Amino acid sequence: MSDCLFCKIIKNEIPSKIVYRDDLVTAFWDIHPQTPVHILIVPNQHIAGAAELTPAHAETLAAMFVAANAIAAEHGVAQSGYRLTINQGPDSGQAVFHLHLHLFGGKRMSDRRG
Amino acid sequence: MSDCLFCKIIKNEIPSKIVYRDDLVTAFWDIHPQTPVHILIVPNQHIAGAAELTPAHAETLAAMFVAANAIAAEHGVAQSGYRLTINQGPDSGQAVFHLHLHLFGGKRMSDRRG
Repeated sequence: MSDCLFCKIIKNEIPSKIVYRDDLVTAFWDIHPQTPVHILIVPNQHIAGAAELTPAHAETLAAMFVAANAIAAEHGVAQSGYRLTINQGPDSGQAVFHLHLHLFGGKRMSDRRG
Repeated sequence: MSDCLFCKIIKNEIPSKIVYRDDLVTAFWDIHPQTPVHILIVPNQHIAGAAELTPAHAETLAAMFVAANAIAAEHGVAQSGYRLTINQGPDSGQAVFHLHLHLFGGKRMSDRRG
């Protein structure tokens, strides 16, 4: 989508700290990291959010999680642990309407989710 | 796995509040809900956690997210929004070593993740 922030990042039209890229997925640092490691893993295809996911996205979803594991290893949090989160809609605080998997790591995370 | 809590729930060997079941996925209420809607979506196959995921799990992963969307609709949070989270390893607070996707909804969730 021509007006989508993450589509522009994927196409290198906006600078970002890209850490991973393959045919299906691009990953880059969150512009406002909430944890020492905070990377966003996004499908190269424009998908507005988790609510749009269907069985046809199986390969893309798997690529996102496989990328997350590689990124966790590369950033030293594979053993210490990491949290993978997708926000969907207003109550979740979803701010960009291009599906993105947050990878949080590098500190002990709260069990509070409220 | 014979000693896995979630495998026992899937096989109905331990009671739980199951809300969804298909060939690939089972979903049930978290025993200690952190939000008004807090449901766990798990693969019927024993997978220890997100770190074990490979491209071979594509169909299962898609089934988990498609189930999440159906569950969100059924529990009245499809429009208000929901957060989908997988915890991997110590820093994340992962407590059961059978892959599970948390679905949180029914209230405005914090942006703090630390």
